[in-house]
Formats: sequence, structure tokens, C-alpha cells
Amino acid sequence: MGEETGGGPGAGSTGGTTLADIAAQAGVSVSTVSKVLHDRSDVASRTRARVQRLLEQHGYLARSRPAATALAPGGLLDFVIKDIDGPWAVELIRGAEEALHAVGMGLVVSAARERGGPTAGRWLDSLATRRTRGAILVIPELDEDEDAELRRLGVPYALIAPVEEPPPGVPWVGATNWPGGLAATRHLVRLGHRRIAVIGGPPDRLSSRARVDGYRSALEEAGLPVDPDLMRHGDFRNEPAYRHALDLLRLPDRPTAIFAGSDQQALSTYRAAAALGLRVPQDVSVVGFDDLPFAEWVTPRLTTVRTPLPEMAAVAARMVLQLLGGEQPETTRVEVAGELVVRDSTAPPARG
Amino acid sequence: MGEETGGGPGAGSTGGTTLADIAAQAGVSVSTVSKVLHDRSDVASRTRARVQRLLEQHGYLARSRPAATALAPGGLLDFVIKDIDGPWAVELIRGAEEALHAVGMGLVVSAARERGGPTAGRWLDSLATRRTRGAILVIPELDEDEDAELRRLGVPYALIAPVEEPPPGVPWVGATNWPGGLAATRHLVRLGHRRIAVIGGPPDRLSSRARVDGYRSALEEAGLPVDPDLMRHGDFRNEPAYRHALDLLRLPDRPTAIFAGSDQQALSTYRAAAALGLRVPQDVSVVGFDDLPFAEWVTPRLTTVRTPLPEMAAVAARMVLQLLGGEQPETTRVEVAGELVVRDSTAPPARG
Repeated sequence: MGEETGGGPGAGSTGGTTLADIAAQAGVSVSTVSKVLHDRSDVASRTRARVQRLLEQHGYLARSRPAATALAPGGLLDFVIKDIDGPWAVELIRGAEEALHAVGMGLVVSAARERGGPTAGRWLDSLATRRTRGAILVIPELDEDEDAELRRLGVPYALIAPVEEPPPGVPWVGATNWPGGLAATRHLVRLGHRRIAVIGGPPDRLSSRARVDGYRSALEEAGLPVDPDLMRHGDFRNEPAYRHALDLLRLPDRPTAIFAGSDQQALSTYRAAAALGLRVPQDVSVVGFDDLPFAEWVTPRLTTVRTPLPEMAAVAARMVLQLLGGEQPETTRVEVAGELVVRDSTAPPARG
Repeated sequence: MGEETGGGPGAGSTGGTTLADIAAQAGVSVSTVSKVLHDRSDVASRTRARVQRLLEQHGYLARSRPAATALAPGGLLDFVIKDIDGPWAVELIRGAEEALHAVGMGLVVSAARERGGPTAGRWLDSLATRRTRGAILVIPELDEDEDAELRRLGVPYALIAPVEEPPPGVPWVGATNWPGGLAATRHLVRLGHRRIAVIGGPPDRLSSRARVDGYRSALEEAGLPVDPDLMRHGDFRNEPAYRHALDLLRLPDRPTAIFAGSDQQALSTYRAAAALGLRVPQDVSVVGFDDLPFAEWVTPRLTTVRTPLPEMAAVAARMVLQLLGGEQPETTRVEVAGELVVRDSTAPPARG
């Protein structure tokens, strides 16, 4: 591998010190030094810190790797989520945890509680108390006071899928909702469906509006009418979606396909169909959104738009690490692309 | 409320200092002091610390509340879980986070990675680096080295649902698996089922064996034969359960009910039934185990044994807090009771 020849990054400034010298100084093997240099995670944290320090002193680790160098291992980022009981939570936690683990850092998970609720206690207070280094926030919106407080504390942060676009300069990560709605609806159009309904999420959520607009665009490009009777808004959860699906499937000229704006809403659509004696997909096709783990466990297996939740959280974590390392992320607005996953809940319409 | 008369716990040693005096010294309202005294969480952490210190000095907070007094707010417990992508993870995280939030502490979540895997890096190293105060471990087993290392670090811990019973003295929390298996099977017997199959989890897991033994006991008490042909072992996940369910439902004298040892396995049983043109519950009743959120979203809604995952995690957190406070928990082995939740996937047998 030529490690001993000083061929690592920043080799020009190593002043003749070889990786073998560093290994000897740190009391570890050259292979361990190499692992630290290449950001491999299978090195004990204390060893990593010792070796990193030596690598920095000898110019092997340059400013181009801020996350690994500017951040001492053992540091923590906060992960604050409003819907900790929602089905998305664990997917996001998993992605953020993995991204931080790779740089030897840990993730403190907390729920953002309702202000004034029985167990209130502002997450910002906890965060200030434990001197966290940065934060990933999965909350509908961040108000000005909170933003100011985070800046005062010197805690860089990134938002995941906020309700509204944050002010310029605030890093945030979302899913590509509009293309997802488009792909879901195109899939139904291509199967031959002409009466396609949508049950969106809350109309005040950008993510939901984008999905519904993607649906509308797919209909328009296919020359199909956009029928307001076939467009409903739920709240991404079950009960409203169940009632909307019942309504839709009881229409005299009922839709042959329903695009549900979340996997949970798709399951409510399954239930409404069953209540009316309709089969999925023979009598009505259903597409969900998210691709949560249960989407492939249910019967029929759900065709859905995958929202890359772990990747979104990993991107948010890396943005915060960049900010911590004194760098500005290349962009402060990232939308991570999902994809349509076709399973068994969609088929050509019976009457088509 | 008589607060100013010094009527709080430990009032005898307050030396005449009233809560109003403490409020004045701390620069807060009497109501805030009262909140801290009663362990309410809606007080900023720094304020809480200041008030707690004064309450301790003046004898209002006694040794009987170790979690609130011996632990500085802002402290962290580690939550280490092997199956961070499993459907249980978020339920456990939620319960532990809430229990810690109540005492002003935070939860660091990490995945226990396979040793030697590509992203290995012992969780114990991270834990040592960040000087965590205690740990909740959701890992199949803790080996002797790990136990010794945690003791050396002075990090008290509790296990949740380990594969094997840990050595005496090691605190652990489980679910009541045997009573759950009994309740699930009794429910089917009472509906009139006589041929009842079980698809358990891995046979080397205590939790799985206990569920299957509960099933067996319910059959025996009803005077029904225990037919080895009707007893299968999966791994709590989908694919093996799907194959077992297909096998069972293809038997010449097929069972009229299946007790699946996990909700995931129950969904695989739904799928196997559908593949054979059988309806749940008309042709085959299905009972799951866990009561994960999707159990009430699927069609038909799943009858299942609730595993009180958030409560289990909260109990584990409180055990660790007690140990941190220098107290021995009342017991080091707790099984938290679940209950049967009857929904739509069970009905009397068609041929009964």
C-alpha cells in the first residue's frame, strides 16, 4: 500500500515522519494508523483520538476532512423529533446514527414536546445543558426565538422535512415529493386507469402539496381531467383517510385507483375497500408513499414511493458536521430522491 | 398548598427555611420551586439544577429521591440496540426517552454492530469515550468481558429482553411471554377452535420458548392434543413464517387458527392465507404478538398480545437511575405484563 512512504493526504507537509513512526509513537500497529487515516470505523475511540492527533501534527490529516479532524470523537449531536411515535422516526434515527457512528460521534434522541403540555420542558434547554455540538431537527417549524437561541449557543443545525421552507441559509433536507407524486400517478395512468383519486396529507404541509401537485401534473400530461371530487386531504394518518376512501369508493362513478399520500393512508384505503367488499388491486389499485417496512409485509404488498428516510437523516447529519468543521455545506437545501417501488397493490383496471 | 410552611418532604431538617426563601435565593417564583420539588418536568434544566441544590442544602430533597438528587440534569444514558431497524426499536426508544426526560436526562441511541462487520467499532468504546452514566442494552446477550468492562467503567446497566437469563444480580426487563402465549391460545380455544397451530420465533430465544409453552399449556388445560405437526419455529421475521404458514394451511386437515409469535409473522400468515384463497378470519383465525402500531392499520385488524415495549424501556431506565443513585432496585428481574387485544382477525371456526 506504500503507507510508509508518506503517501497519505497532505503528504507534502509530513516532514519525513512515516506512518510507521506515528504507529510507534501511538503504540499501535501501522494498520490501525491506516484505518484512522482512511476514516474506517473499526478503531476504538480513544485510540482513534490519539492517532488522529498525531496524524494532524504531522500533516497527514488536512482541513479537507473537517468532520474527522475538527470534531473530537465522543462528541454528540442532538436529534429532536416531534412525532417520536410516528412510523418514520426509527428510519430517521437509524440513518443519523449511522452517519455519526462513522465519525465516532453519538446521537442524543429526544422528543420535541408540546409547549405547555404536561411533560413540557423545552428541548432547547436540555440541549443547552448538555452542551451538544449540533442538532438535527425533525419539527414542523423552527420559530425565530429558537433559531436565535441556537445561534447564541453556537449549535449548528439542519431541519428535516419542515412544514414550510425555512429562511435562506438554514440547512434543510427533504424528500422529492413532487416527482414522487408524479411517478405514482404516471404508473397508474400507464396501467390504464382514467379515474384516479388522491388522498393527500394536510393541505398546509409543503410535502403533501407537492405530492398532490405531482399527481395533478401526471393527469394533465395524460390529457385526463383533474376532478376536484377525487381529491381529498387527510392528515397522513389513518382515520381521516379511512373516511375519505369510503366516500370515494361509494361514488356512483368510483375511482379505479387511489394514490394515498402515505403508507398509513394506503392501509386505511385497503380497509375501506374491504369494508365495501372491493378487492385490491382487482377492483381498486392503491399506491402509498414512504415505503415503510410494513409496506412489503401487508397483503397485497403495497406499491409505494420510497422516501429515503435514512439517507435524508444521514445528509442532515453530514451538513451539521460540515458546519461544525467550519465549512459551509455546498448547498443548504437538499432534496433526496425516492423511487417508485411496484408491488402487488396496483393492476390494470377491471373495466379498462 | 401550605408550601411556605415547610411542609415538604424532609421538612424536619429545613431549619426554618421556607420555600419562599429558596425561591428568593434562586431568583425564581415559589411555583417554580414547587415544581422542582415535585419533580415536574416543565422547568428549564439550569433553573432546576440551581433550585435542586438549594432544596438539598435545606433538607427538602432527601435521599429517597436519588434519581432527582444524585443525578445532575443534563446527564446521559446510553441506549444500545442490536436491531435498530426492527419494528420494536422506536417503541423502546420512546419509553426510555420519556423516563429520562422526566428527570432531565438525555438518551444516546446507538446500534450494536456485528463484531468484525464493515462498520464495526465496539459500542463499549463509544460509551467509554463519552463518559456515559449508565446504559440500557437491547442486545441478545452480554458477554463476560463486556460486563467486566462496564463494571470497571462504573457504568450501571440494565438489559431488555435478552436471549438468555443473565447471571444473578444483572438487572433485566422482559415481557410476560408465557402468559401472553396462554392468553392468545385460550382466546382461540374459547372461540371454538380445536386445531390451532403456532409459528414461534427462534427456538433458542427464551421469549419465544415461553410463548410456545403458553400455547401448549392452553391446549392441555382444554384437553386438546398437542400436535407437533402444528408447531413451527420461524425467526420472528417474515419469510420463514410465510413458508411455515403455507405448509400449515396446505395440510389435509389444516388448522383453523394460527398463533403467530410476532406481528410480523402474523402478516406473513395473512399473505399465505391470501395466496391459497383463504380468508382471515372466516377460513383461518390469526393472533399475533407485540401489538406494533401497524397491527391496527392492517386488514383485518390484528388480534394480538400487546408487548408493553415503552413501559419495559421505562422500567429499565428507572432501574439504571436507581443504581446510579446508589440504590439497589427492589428487584433485578422484572417482567412487564402485556394483554390480549382482540380485533378482527379471530372468529369462531367455520366448521366448528
